[in-house]
Amino acid sequence: MKLVNYRLKNDFSLNRIGIMRDDKVIDLSKGYAQMKLKENNLASIGVFPSDPDQFYSNGKAILEEAKKIDAFLQKEPPEYQYKKEEVVIGPPVPNPSKIICVGTNYAEHIAEMKGVVPDYPVLFAKFNNALIGPEDSIYKTDQTEKLDYEAELGVVIGQKASNVKQEDVFEYIAGYTIANDISARDLQKRTLQWLQGKSLDHTTPIGPYIVTVDDIPNPNQLNIKSYVNGEMRQSSNTKHQIFNIPHIVSFISELITLEPGDIILTGTPDGVGMGMNPPTYLKLGDKVRVEIEGIGMMENEVVAPRQ
Amino acid sequence: MKLVNYRLKNDFSLNRIGIMRDDKVIDLSKGYAQMKLKENNLASIGVFPSDPDQFYSNGKAILEEAKKIDAFLQKEPPEYQYKKEEVVIGPPVPNPSKIICVGTNYAEHIAEMKGVVPDYPVLFAKFNNALIGPEDSIYKTDQTEKLDYEAELGVVIGQKASNVKQEDVFEYIAGYTIANDISARDLQKRTLQWLQGKSLDHTTPIGPYIVTVDDIPNPNQLNIKSYVNGEMRQSSNTKHQIFNIPHIVSFISELITLEPGDIILTGTPDGVGMGMNPPTYLKLGDKVRVEIEGIGMMENEVVAPRQ
Repeated sequence: MKLVNYRLKNDFSLNRIGIMRDDKVIDLSKGYAQMKLKENNLASIGVFPSDPDQFYSNGKAILEEAKKIDAFLQKEPPEYQYKKEEVVIGPPVPNPSKIICVGTNYAEHIAEMKGVVPDYPVLFAKFNNALIGPEDSIYKTDQTEKLDYEAELGVVIGQKASNVKQEDVFEYIAGYTIANDISARDLQKRTLQWLQGKSLDHTTPIGPYIVTVDDIPNPNQLNIKSYVNGEMRQSSNTKHQIFNIPHIVSFISELITLEPGDIILTGTPDGVGMGMNPPTYLKLGDKVRVEIEGIGMMENEVVAPRQ
Repeated sequence: MKLVNYRLKNDFSLNRIGIMRDDKVIDLSKGYAQMKLKENNLASIGVFPSDPDQFYSNGKAILEEAKKIDAFLQKEPPEYQYKKEEVVIGPPVPNPSKIICVGTNYAEHIAEMKGVVPDYPVLFAKFNNALIGPEDSIYKTDQTEKLDYEAELGVVIGQKASNVKQEDVFEYIAGYTIANDISARDLQKRTLQWLQGKSLDHTTPIGPYIVTVDDIPNPNQLNIKSYVNGEMRQSSNTKHQIFNIPHIVSFISELITLEPGDIILTGTPDGVGMGMNPPTYLKLGDKVRVEIEGIGMMENEVVAPRQ
């Protein structure tokens, strides 16, 4: 199942949670009403949250309910579905309570960045000011001359998680998405802490949807690629992560309680612009595409911010 | 004016925004209703947000309205006020969209930490899982043997701020509060990025209230002190900050759009436990007190987490 945050292409539409299937978006809370109507269970109609943040805040129970709706709508034609052209797709979770990133998590990327293989996962943060949808453009301001891409597998938390063992982490994951951890290398490196190069306004595309955990048996066996203007730059596999998904989620949960909707970016492989000879950074008009096996692809253009 | 987040001492009470005056808490939305009733303006009663997060999200306009209510309740006795014993005080902003910290911002602290004076403000993050109120206890888990205190002046944003000039920052500040940037030095230092030692669950007390910007003419001229079990450990003045408040807020606003309620911790002076000879860390039962001139004081006990 692919969970998507969408709105209809008119100014008054709010973000809604939906399922993406065969390039169509099916509204989930309306699907729920349709299912309950069919069951003659009228009392429940309207209690299903339509807002994506609110949807995820309900934890695993609502993800299970979504699966039932999805199964129901495989048999019954959905009453409310939209073509891709009719909707705008937003970041799967619009306002996560945390975006936690894992740095230096692929050996060959560490080599190109002249870094050191860490003994523990390296954690840093982004804030929601950086978050954009899969169809949005990446802003490049005059603050940076060294804007760079980083293709990453994103993990979305499905259930409050504290002190979770590695073997249990999949119980706490809603699913996986594609992220581009856009980084301003000049700002990232001008102090010892990376935050200021990692959380610029309107720079981190995530999406296009969340593929639920059941549909990806092994998140550490996925090809991951990026392209700039059609030229392949990164090509690796998540099996090369130094700390794999169970390790990362368990490790973080021992320090920081994870909430439903929280996003973890799990590091980027080698091939970033900074590692090229000579280093080659993103410029206005560039199109950056990230592909992850089993999820799909996301492409974003680099533009000057709207004034 | 001192803005406080309080709830009545019963399980069903929600967090509410209030004013603290002469050790009493005055409910702000009820004060608003009282003022509007007096003005015979019945239509407005009930539109004033009682929830602290919602209060701050309204920006400067509501801070101005709060000042009017405060002035009104200096003349009229407030109908709803509570003694300190009747309420629980929470963190002034319960769910800020960002907590941004400035590291290495006092020269003598950099010396004791054997750090380097930075060319730019060093920014790092905390998440809301770390945030606790001024009366709450600091959790120390077995994950760390090197828990340390850091007395800091906190700046609370009052109005959405992007690309703000240094001379204009006070227009965007709601006020100031006390923070203790509790840090697990072993976790902070085991990788190059500090986040994992800075955002442990239930470790960062903030409060007891926000002193509004008008009441502190110069935030860079305040004595700041900390004590552990009554023994003075830190004693400095915010005039020793390498990057002062206008510099910090302007600098961040050029990179990251600040939202009302966002909290900025502005760095700690020398005297932390790690800088002592021998280094001396917090242990269960320790009481850490932070005092800032013009604001007040906050004391928190170090305890094992509730199971």
